[in-house]
Amino acid sequence: MAHIPYHDTSGSLPVREIIMPALTQVQLMERSRNQATFDSNKLTEVIFGGQVYSKDAVDRQKEAFARVEKALNTDLSKLPARYGNMNREQMMDEGMRTGSIAVNDGLDHKHSFFDQSNLQWSLANSNPFSLTGLLFTPLLRLQCSAEQLAYWLPLAESGRIIGSFAQTELGHGTFVGGLQTTATFDKETGEFVIHTPSISATKYWPGALGFAATHAIVVARMIIAGTDHGVHSFVMQIRSLEDFKPLPGIELGDIGLKMSYNDTDNGYAVFKHVRIPRKHLLMRYTTVTRDGSYSSDPLSEKLLYGGLLNGRTVIIRNCAFQLAQALTIATRYSVVRQQGEKKDHGLHQPEIMSYKLQHHRLLTLVSMAYANIFASKTISASYQQMLEQQASGRNDSLPYMHMIIAGLKAWSTQTASDGAEDARKMCGGHGYLMMSGLPEIVASCTATCTFEGENVVMWKQVSRYLMKGMAAPSLPHDMVYMASYSGPVVFPYQGDDFLRPEVLVEIFEHRSARLTHEAYEALCNEQGSRASAENTHAVALHIAARACIDLFVLQSFISSIAVTLPSTLHAVLTRLLLLYALTTISSPLSLSSATFALSSPQIASMRAQTNTVLEELLPDAIALTDAWNFTDASLSSALGCRDGDVYRRIMEWTRQLPINVHAAENGGVLKGPWEASVKPFLREGVVRSRGMSRL
Amino acid sequence: MAHIPYHDTSGSLPVREIIMPALTQVQLMERSRNQATFDSNKLTEVIFGGQVYSKDAVDRQKEAFARVEKALNTDLSKLPARYGNMNREQMMDEGMRTGSIAVNDGLDHKHSFFDQSNLQWSLANSNPFSLTGLLFTPLLRLQCSAEQLAYWLPLAESGRIIGSFAQTELGHGTFVGGLQTTATFDKETGEFVIHTPSISATKYWPGALGFAATHAIVVARMIIAGTDHGVHSFVMQIRSLEDFKPLPGIELGDIGLKMSYNDTDNGYAVFKHVRIPRKHLLMRYTTVTRDGSYSSDPLSEKLLYGGLLNGRTVIIRNCAFQLAQALTIATRYSVVRQQGEKKDHGLHQPEIMSYKLQHHRLLTLVSMAYANIFASKTISASYQQMLEQQASGRNDSLPYMHMIIAGLKAWSTQTASDGAEDARKMCGGHGYLMMSGLPEIVASCTATCTFEGENVVMWKQVSRYLMKGMAAPSLPHDMVYMASYSGPVVFPYQGDDFLRPEVLVEIFEHRSARLTHEAYEALCNEQGSRASAENTHAVALHIAARACIDLFVLQSFISSIAVTLPSTLHAVLTRLLLLYALTTISSPLSLSSATFALSSPQIASMRAQTNTVLEELLPDAIALTDAWNFTDASLSSALGCRDGDVYRRIMEWTRQLPINVHAAENGGVLKGPWEASVKPFLREGVVRSRGMSRL
Repeated sequence: MAHIPYHDTSGSLPVREIIMPALTQVQLMERSRNQATFDSNKLTEVIFGGQVYSKDAVDRQKEAFARVEKALNTDLSKLPARYGNMNREQMMDEGMRTGSIAVNDGLDHKHSFFDQSNLQWSLANSNPFSLTGLLFTPLLRLQCSAEQLAYWLPLAESGRIIGSFAQTELGHGTFVGGLQTTATFDKETGEFVIHTPSISATKYWPGALGFAATHAIVVARMIIAGTDHGVHSFVMQIRSLEDFKPLPGIELGDIGLKMSYNDTDNGYAVFKHVRIPRKHLLMRYTTVTRDGSYSSDPLSEKLLYGGLLNGRTVIIRNCAFQLAQALTIATRYSVVRQQGEKKDHGLHQPEIMSYKLQHHRLLTLVSMAYANIFASKTISASYQQMLEQQASGRNDSLPYMHMIIAGLKAWSTQTASDGAEDARKMCGGHGYLMMSGLPEIVASCTATCTFEGENVVMWKQVSRYLMKGMAAPSLPHDMVYMASYSGPVVFPYQGDDFLRPEVLVEIFEHRSARLTHEAYEALCNEQGSRASAENTHAVALHIAARACIDLFVLQSFISSIAVTLPSTLHAVLTRLLLLYALTTISSPLSLSSATFALSSPQIASMRAQTNTVLEELLPDAIALTDAWNFTDASLSSALGCRDGDVYRRIMEWTRQLPINVHAAENGGVLKGPWEASVKPFLREGVVRSRGMSRL
Repeated sequence: MAHIPYHDTSGSLPVREIIMPALTQVQLMERSRNQATFDSNKLTEVIFGGQVYSKDAVDRQKEAFARVEKALNTDLSKLPARYGNMNREQMMDEGMRTGSIAVNDGLDHKHSFFDQSNLQWSLANSNPFSLTGLLFTPLLRLQCSAEQLAYWLPLAESGRIIGSFAQTELGHGTFVGGLQTTATFDKETGEFVIHTPSISATKYWPGALGFAATHAIVVARMIIAGTDHGVHSFVMQIRSLEDFKPLPGIELGDIGLKMSYNDTDNGYAVFKHVRIPRKHLLMRYTTVTRDGSYSSDPLSEKLLYGGLLNGRTVIIRNCAFQLAQALTIATRYSVVRQQGEKKDHGLHQPEIMSYKLQHHRLLTLVSMAYANIFASKTISASYQQMLEQQASGRNDSLPYMHMIIAGLKAWSTQTASDGAEDARKMCGGHGYLMMSGLPEIVASCTATCTFEGENVVMWKQVSRYLMKGMAAPSLPHDMVYMASYSGPVVFPYQGDDFLRPEVLVEIFEHRSARLTHEAYEALCNEQGSRASAENTHAVALHIAARACIDLFVLQSFISSIAVTLPSTLHAVLTRLLLLYALTTISSPLSLSSATFALSSPQIASMRAQTNTVLEELLPDAIALTDAWNFTDASLSSALGCRDGDVYRRIMEWTRQLPINVHAAENGGVLKGPWEASVKPFLREGVVRSRGMSRL
């Protein structure tokens, strides 16, 4: 009973001496799940609802997944198509097929889950049809005049056109001011002429641009009568709606295989003097009259920028759940994977979850995923507030929101991509299999580190804000905690003190204040240009930026659980909060800042408290990952299915691999390579099987 | 002249105002290459020769690449096939084709470069035909009796059989003692019966096992008359050499797509009571007589283990060069990629290499790649010495070699995979393109982190050795530097002192001694079992292990360049040595160990010295990567070609993507998805292009 027999174990061979697990993988999973101290369904409501319960939101999400998974006919016993035998073109086909089902679900149901994420919880721009809702429509709302909006919005929102956003060029990424595509005003005809003046000006990377989009918002330098007015947005039709061919003068195509996102057609576009009507310039804040006179609202930049920050809040949210996915898989596999021998386990191999270095790493990451989720909820709420303020003419919270969202984008994408990769490694060799689901999650996650500019650029935005704040006559509101800083302190805390959130906040605040003050002093003492000083002290600035965001994450975690919750939920979330705070403050990066000194006994005490919290969290490991509520189909993982039946499922899927099915049809031989490569390699097959047994 | 025109820039549009780079990418590359302070060819000889010059070794390596690349017909203007449109089966076909060419080159030329690495510098086991030389043959040499060796070796070495090594099982990885496959002796017939008793006992992962190997060394538990004699090795024919079908009772297949290594058939095998002759047990150290009596040489384990360490030394070497590959690509792209604005660059966008955070990260990694190369050379030489000692009956250096190779395996695989991924991120979005070459390098590199056991297991082997050494009556020879440790010291050093290698060694030694002593004390103070104490202090043990390996790497770097070298080479290698040492000692991980305290001014001084060294190294960045001597074909990178002509090459390859070629044949439309998905999605195409311009 203890081992899983093949159909033909009828042989009478002795198995007495063989080490067998006492429980099957399914039983191990069941046992782990039953150890939980709380009801994971209730935690699901906290995660996906507001800060108070919302069973309704969870139900709607479940229904959306059920509808779409039904339409896609997913089935756990079948090898997911993506792990089979697809080439680039087939991936694209499949992406279009599944993508249209998900987006149609959104169009049919007022509030669709799939606006921001795809079925596998990748960012929705991995779906060729989703960019319309994710970026194209919001940009229209931001930049269109009322007349323009009345025309374009219904088309985009009803799915009658498919949008792309063509900003990035082959040679120009983050620095928008360096874009080279030109939009030259022709006074004769009253048209703009869109043109790609060099290879490096080719639009490259925009999602859906290759083969799915009918329209694009194209960012180009506006040139009127020889004067460069800088970059502006134009809406352009790029493909015929009759036969879908690229319109004259436009070359479109795919940019090929990427680490992930192969369901969509990140594309390129070359424009050869393509003429568009003057009114395709998005005119909310910028106007060009028929005779070519240009005017622009000086306030527009702030509003535009505020609107564009939305993309980053979506990235932050998404990363939290992609990390959660990887952790769900790794945690589930860790409670059913048995390895090595520990004396106290008798004959049986212990589950690897019981090893300190495994559960320390896993549970710390689980705490970070929760921290990320709560930070994401906090920032989304603040962002909505800011938009409302902007709508009533107040832009004063923009600089802070810009900073905190940039920093959180860097923090969450880095945490998620490093964490997902670490989770993958914690699954050993099997994590390297595509059918583990992990490589795709890691690859999709890591993309976000370079989205909207590599994270180094994001951290710079945070440190610039901090330095500007320090230089201001009085500290901005969000930096007032730094005012009380008057040099290094020695904290009086010990033992249980480190389990009090207010103590942890005090330490985080002091660290942030200290690093910021010291970086500022270093800058002030520097000769030469500000840019060169920033370059010289880049590391110190980076660490200060990071400390500021760590504090924000801690505070949002604390305030997110300071609501009425069942006591079991409150207890487990508090443990996660403590684990996040203790491991962050005693992490190498934190401790290494020579400016931040906790004493050795204090650090030892924090590590002891960490061990205690880990012990308390261990029984809840499965429930904490169950609470994220990922369907088996959305995980697409042979290692991470809910039932824990790992080995049976791996073999079931392995035998369904087309390469194996095709070989089996030919007696177990891959005909092509055998004839073309192996047979010649064996050099006339001098050795015959009979010969082999002669020995 | 400054921009690269499309063929039809005949339009008379003004480009005056457009920011244009002053130099083309090719010119930027040339300029960077010409700044070097030394001759990169001379450094190539140091890298690939012995510690003294060996132009000969470099020439032979160049010839091997030239022969194989010629046979494969590589051409920089053609999109490499792997970036096109391959499915799993086509990847396998291509792997068999290119693999046989590389291995045949080795069989035809006595000393082939491709014994250890493939054409892309992946480990040779990414080639389905290479495992024979990399693992199968060495294992035969280790475990065969003289009679067996005389029979099998000529077959394997002449390429008349293709070998695999079937150890790992679906449910059992690192812990060999837990394997479940049985080899039961049948006294009646004098045969062993090889059998897979459960799903989790399926052989899973062995290279070449799926479709390439004709034979395998199978590791199974030997059972004689109901007694389990533990795991032993058996050689088995698994496929017919006539028609290549799996032999009766054997099921073989591929395990599907992996993150990388898709050129080879990591496979699975299920055995159903397969009978093999008794003499297929490898009998050098273990004998089973015809009547079933078992005897085993108690010394065999050490010799076997010593032999198996070879695999790890190959991994260490390989990782050094895979990191070097990624850095070659990232460095080359960084000197031609222009981004952002810096005031002192006037109108032109600066190359991103000039940004501190870019060259700090890149050059630090370059120094680590060099450190890794020298450590690999040192360890390989020591390993050969150990084998010679073992051959003459001395096994006393085995425990040390086992420890240092395990630690170096963990250090180098982690350094390489994190470093390659960081290099990829430093290329921004383009590093995410498969045609950048980086995703494949990262994915192939990261596999080595879990090879032979995840690195956590490797670090444990180091810390166990250290703790055992501390507990011994006298410290082992390699730990004597720890004897003088008598508690924390305050170093008197400042400023230029930190540029003296002997000072750095002293600091590294003190750090290692201190962390080891403190971990040992912590263990000794712990109640309960040793296993539980190790679990509790896992982090402290891990950091101590790491410090010990850091010291080894430093020492091997120092001794590797303490040879007669041209002064320009010696100068640049010394700078790299200093950069490695300074950044290691002032890294977060190092500084965070509360037990290791350099004062703030000392750390500031080390950072200042680091900045100086970086400035000095900057002009040599291209030469340092050129010295690794990677051919363009071996990099397969649109970003990392030697000539720097990045944007032209990306577009050249992009236009050759089969998906684009096929669409172009159909007027720029992907026919299948247009009909099946896009057209229905657009909902009857209500909007017509004429309609669009009405606005």
